[in-house]
Amino acid sequence: MTKPQPKQLRRAYGFDEVAIVPGNTTINPDQTNIHFTIGDLEFAIPIIAAAMDAVTDVDFAIAMSQLGGLAVLNLEGLQTRYDNPREILAEIARAPDEEVTSLLQKIYSQPIKENLIGQSIQAIKQAGAVCAISVIPSNAKSFAPIIAEAGADILVVQSTVTTSRHTSKSYRGLIFDELCKSVPMPVVVGNCVSFDACLELMRTGISGILVGVGPGAACTTREVLGVGVPQITATMDCASARDEYLKESDRYVPIITDGGFRKGGELCKAFAAGADAVMLGSIFAQAKEAPGLGYHWGMSHPHPALPRGTRIKVGTNGTLEQILFGPTSVTDGSQNLIGALRTAMGVCGAADIKEMHQAEMVIAPAIITEGKSWQFSSRR
Amino acid sequence: MTKPQPKQLRRAYGFDEVAIVPGNTTINPDQTNIHFTIGDLEFAIPIIAAAMDAVTDVDFAIAMSQLGGLAVLNLEGLQTRYDNPREILAEIARAPDEEVTSLLQKIYSQPIKENLIGQSIQAIKQAGAVCAISVIPSNAKSFAPIIAEAGADILVVQSTVTTSRHTSKSYRGLIFDELCKSVPMPVVVGNCVSFDACLELMRTGISGILVGVGPGAACTTREVLGVGVPQITATMDCASARDEYLKESDRYVPIITDGGFRKGGELCKAFAAGADAVMLGSIFAQAKEAPGLGYHWGMSHPHPALPRGTRIKVGTNGTLEQILFGPTSVTDGSQNLIGALRTAMGVCGAADIKEMHQAEMVIAPAIITEGKSWQFSSRR
Amino acid sequence: MTKPQPKQLRRAYGFDEVAIVPGNTTINPDQTNIHFTIGDLEFAIPIIAAAMDAVTDVDFAIAMSQLGGLAVLNLEGLQTRYDNPREILAEIARAPDEEVTSLLQKIYSQPIKENLIGQSIQAIKQAGAVCAISVIPSNAKSFAPIIAEAGADILVVQSTVTTSRHTSKSYRGLIFDELCKSVPMPVVVGNCVSFDACLELMRTGISGILVGVGPGAACTTREVLGVGVPQITATMDCASARDEYLKESDRYVPIITDGGFRKGGELCKAFAAGADAVMLGSIFAQAKEAPGLGYHWGMSHPHPALPRGTRIKVGTNGTLEQILFGPTSVTDGSQNLIGALRTAMGVCGAADIKEMHQAEMVIAPAIITEGKSWQFSSRR
Amino acid sequence: MTKPQPKQLRRAYGFDEVAIVPGNTTINPDQTNIHFTIGDLEFAIPIIAAAMDAVTDVDFAIAMSQLGGLAVLNLEGLQTRYDNPREILAEIARAPDEEVTSLLQKIYSQPIKENLIGQSIQAIKQAGAVCAISVIPSNAKSFAPIIAEAGADILVVQSTVTTSRHTSKSYRGLIFDELCKSVPMPVVVGNCVSFDACLELMRTGISGILVGVGPGAACTTREVLGVGVPQITATMDCASARDEYLKESDRYVPIITDGGFRKGGELCKAFAAGADAVMLGSIFAQAKEAPGLGYHWGMSHPHPALPRGTRIKVGTNGTLEQILFGPTSVTDGSQNLIGALRTAMGVCGAADIKEMHQAEMVIAPAIITEGKSWQFSSRR
Repeated sequence: MTKPQPKQLRRAYGFDEVAIVPGNTTINPDQTNIHFTIGDLEFAIPIIAAAMDAVTDVDFAIAMSQLGGLAVLNLEGLQTRYDNPREILAEIARAPDEEVTSLLQKIYSQPIKENLIGQSIQAIKQAGAVCAISVIPSNAKSFAPIIAEAGADILVVQSTVTTSRHTSKSYRGLIFDELCKSVPMPVVVGNCVSFDACLELMRTGISGILVGVGPGAACTTREVLGVGVPQITATMDCASARDEYLKESDRYVPIITDGGFRKGGELCKAFAAGADAVMLGSIFAQAKEAPGLGYHWGMSHPHPALPRGTRIKVGTNGTLEQILFGPTSVTDGSQNLIGALRTAMGVCGAADIKEMHQAEMVIAPAIITEGKSWQFSSRR
Repeated sequence: MTKPQPKQLRRAYGFDEVAIVPGNTTINPDQTNIHFTIGDLEFAIPIIAAAMDAVTDVDFAIAMSQLGGLAVLNLEGLQTRYDNPREILAEIARAPDEEVTSLLQKIYSQPIKENLIGQSIQAIKQAGAVCAISVIPSNAKSFAPIIAEAGADILVVQSTVTTSRHTSKSYRGLIFDELCKSVPMPVVVGNCVSFDACLELMRTGISGILVGVGPGAACTTREVLGVGVPQITATMDCASARDEYLKESDRYVPIITDGGFRKGGELCKAFAAGADAVMLGSIFAQAKEAPGLGYHWGMSHPHPALPRGTRIKVGTNGTLEQILFGPTSVTDGSQNLIGALRTAMGVCGAADIKEMHQAEMVIAPAIITEGKSWQFSSRR
Repeated sequence: MTKPQPKQLRRAYGFDEVAIVPGNTTINPDQTNIHFTIGDLEFAIPIIAAAMDAVTDVDFAIAMSQLGGLAVLNLEGLQTRYDNPREILAEIARAPDEEVTSLLQKIYSQPIKENLIGQSIQAIKQAGAVCAISVIPSNAKSFAPIIAEAGADILVVQSTVTTSRHTSKSYRGLIFDELCKSVPMPVVVGNCVSFDACLELMRTGISGILVGVGPGAACTTREVLGVGVPQITATMDCASARDEYLKESDRYVPIITDGGFRKGGELCKAFAAGADAVMLGSIFAQAKEAPGLGYHWGMSHPHPALPRGTRIKVGTNGTLEQILFGPTSVTDGSQNLIGALRTAMGVCGAADIKEMHQAEMVIAPAIITEGKSWQFSSRR
Repeated sequence: MTKPQPKQLRRAYGFDEVAIVPGNTTINPDQTNIHFTIGDLEFAIPIIAAAMDAVTDVDFAIAMSQLGGLAVLNLEGLQTRYDNPREILAEIARAPDEEVTSLLQKIYSQPIKENLIGQSIQAIKQAGAVCAISVIPSNAKSFAPIIAEAGADILVVQSTVTTSRHTSKSYRGLIFDELCKSVPMPVVVGNCVSFDACLELMRTGISGILVGVGPGAACTTREVLGVGVPQITATMDCASARDEYLKESDRYVPIITDGGFRKGGELCKAFAAGADAVMLGSIFAQAKEAPGLGYHWGMSHPHPALPRGTRIKVGTNGTLEQILFGPTSVTDGSQNLIGALRTAMGVCGAADIKEMHQAEMVIAPAIITEGKSWQFSSRR
């Protein structure tokens, strides 16, 4: 009897499973170029702070922009539901573990106040900072005019999984082609993890893709839904889609690996896998400037019926500037991320991010290969 | 010297090793269809409670049926050996770890009382619930008439491993063709894990297959016998057999993945691997309605000479309704299983279970890929 | 530049990485035949106790023979160095961990007393038991006459690694062809792990092969020397050599998988991989009859310059009869090994050991596949 | 749609993932030849102590040379920055964990005193020992004359990653061809891990290669930069380059596997993978003679802006002679490294290191294959 071939399962790889191979040439780190571009906006460093309430508020967005990066403000988060978000954040930080999910469900059930949207955007703009705002797909069309009017620079449309073709009976699926034409700013969309989904989204005219489903430190999507692709494979697949789309359209749409980062080494691996930029959550939640007061939680966490997340205690680990640029006496890779990236590019002989995309990588699962299981560190 | 090729070893995969890849289209969760059918019986949800004494008694079977699912009553368990099974269950719950196996061996050595069989079936039927009863193969022929007469709807013939060809000198092996013809109800058989064994069983005329050897949380078959196939591979192989049998016979025999589930994500993976329904033990043992009082043990555990199991403390985790439908403030995937299934189908763009069978999966061993080892959770 | 192909590395598998797939037919366990043969000697059960001082003394050898198996007495161990080995064994059991290696080095530096060799063999024979005696290769020629004269039934020539071609300047390498012709009993040789080495040894005329380098629980050969092959692959390779040798010579030389067993399931896997019998150390050190008083150590442990072993506390776990045949209330697979073997053969439909060699196996690493890491049990 | 093929990821292997297969012949350990050669200098044992401040000072270099090996003195370490390095070493040993990195950064910011360079070299030479000195590439040209004049025997040019082609705007990249011609001694260069980089370096005329990026026990390069290749694969690739270079030039340039060793078994595996010698850090930091007082740290640890290392407490484990030659009562493979190497060569039938390069190896990840996870030992 010839057995029919069952479904093929491809091996996918995460950060802890790969390592970068040094190059055959080397370059001094201070000669590396790490600029990053979305639409016509250029950033000195390819690092973006996530649209999570423990990470980005108005002040954090300004600070991040001043340091050369970008932070995304969550339009459906605490900043637009409460006039006094700091009190709410303090309440979340004080809540005991066993009560925090119910508390978050209650807190996030408050309605969004439209006036706070405009105020937040204008505060960021008035400080001379670049302003990026995120909305979920079903809110994109209704909020886009307010966001545009208030002068935001980048619109981010983000949910756990976003595709260019969504079926719903309660609302007409968001048509990204229409959205891109109707707003006067670049649109960044996510999250996605596969070649086809990424390519289809790029063809709608969007200006950036967020890559990553399930990897975040504060996210339990993989436990609850079984859904997720490890970030190295997701980044490599979406990078292939970007390169394919560049060939067919002559337009370069950057991909931004979003979620799951804990160390500088993981950032470097994402770039070697093909990322143009990275989006960080829990690392920035550790900054002195972060609104989360040493705690972090995911934006799927407060879901009223099926919460997917944990509040994790991340503590406070230096200023944002130290985290990005050092100098530091921390040796675990959680500070001086830019120094780490430049040094890794140096040993790979990569003069810019596109050359870093060519770096060789090997599969070398940390837990198996060297017996170094830093994933079991005390903080996790 | 040409070395002869040694035995080929195929890689088999378990729940923690795979993840579902989101689709290129998405669909609103509330538009997904999750009906499930055995013979002519249709169920609103594709979830079955296992024929284990810590899970299913008469009341639990009624509650499960009312919620749209099915529970199987173990005909060779406590419910038919004791007039007062609750006292026995309390005794098991109170026993210290080091004495519980001997106690179970003693308790299960009591004879089955035929009158209790009929009483249990009738109690379930009188409540308007669907009644499924399980027997071991060697008891199937002798008990079938009693079960049929009492009005049960589904006969489940279940042992650790069941094949269509069994050799014994003490009794004539059970002929499933004959059994299926002699009883007026659908016959579900298990457990099996391979393509050939599954296909041969389907050809006997049975109406459903239980898939799974060795994976259960309370089962030590793999330690004691070395026998077992991880559930994703077992499900994929039996799904191939189902599809093959459909081609040759034009009859669709559903496969039910049985055992090893701890979280919603694992259910979703089983459906993506090809399951038509899933059978749960330890998850339901945690329901307030479960007879096990917060404990769970396998049906191979009380074997008089070679016990294979452990009594595990599962605790109590919400009502059956909460476990199935939420809402919940638990974020580890152990509640709102139906919500999780519908959401996973949504991100895969799967409108029904058969479309969910087409979802892409990747190999991404949790312990290696992301350093998230939720298998080391406190309860295990 | 074309890179030269580096050395090929083949993947090798251990017990915890594989599982047996149930068959398409099943058979009642009590109908399985598990006889085992060395030369003309037949044994009711295919289990041999190792030539280790914590396992086999005269009384243990007699008990094992009476139960249908075989135990090998170590001619270079405590039984032939001391008139009062029990006192020495008690001293070892009492020694603190940090002193035990030096103590063993001192104890094993005492000379062998030739008179004790004959006495031990005769004591075993007088009890009507089968007597097997082990020596290291460099002692084989000088001790063989004494062993033969005293009436031993089987001569075992054993060292960490034994080949048919050994180079030494201090003594002429042992020629197995000559040894086999000069002694009136079957010669069993080990240990080896590879196809070629096994086949070459079989061609010298020996009557059995011990398979296994490095796997034992009390052995640190892999840490100290980096040498070792996991037992499933070693067994499969040596089984291939046995089958090849049978083809070329029409003589069936059994292979005995030696070392690394902790549970019944592992025994079953060894037979499915091709073993004709298994040799157990630490499992039998747990028997009430074992001389080790709840401790176990390897025979490379007392090496004067490069000790390779650890004394492990194994505790006492039932009588030898319970360990072999049950009944038991222990559910971790450490008792009723024969019941486990017969049951596993039953679910594979294997009527005898040779049919069990045909059982299908899958690669399913316990620690990755199901999150069941029984290798991290408290005793290890 | 045909998906473009994403970047290929090759699997790379570390020490804990492989094991040596015994050979088809064996040889007495005392008949093995383990000599090692750099340029015209011959060493009785193929073991080199690393240029790390916790390992090698003048006295240690003399002791190592007297025992037949080699130790490399770090020209940019404490010995040449301080007149009283022992006081500084004691200060490091006393520092609490949370302060040690800042302390190291401060200590290593002191300037190098040129007079101490000559004094150190002459002290080693006056004791009749072989003297090897290490410098970083950017210091090589300026310090080479001093080193040569003081009479050193070997010049080691070492940084985390060294290639034959380095781009810098602040200094003209080191040209190894020129360096080799300008100094009257063999030049050893490192570190590198890949075939191409190794081959290019050999073509510059250097006399030895250090292999290894990221594996050291006190090194966090892989966490911080994401860069590193496990040592078995790195050694195999560089051994291929050595063999290729031998074919094209008829010159044999030895490769020295540097870093990540904890046990004798790992040394044996490095030789089986193709190493001509091994360089040890943390193992020698445990010697009574080591200057580190039971502590060890990496030379990237004190980096002022991006420190990459941890100070680890290694303790003190016997004399240097015991560690190298035994005898010992330690059974974990950390002592009698030479005895272990000779014994492993014996069971492989390897009469010299080049024959040991031919030993067969299998992939057998310790943590998966046998459940022996000695990488989780208490000391790490």
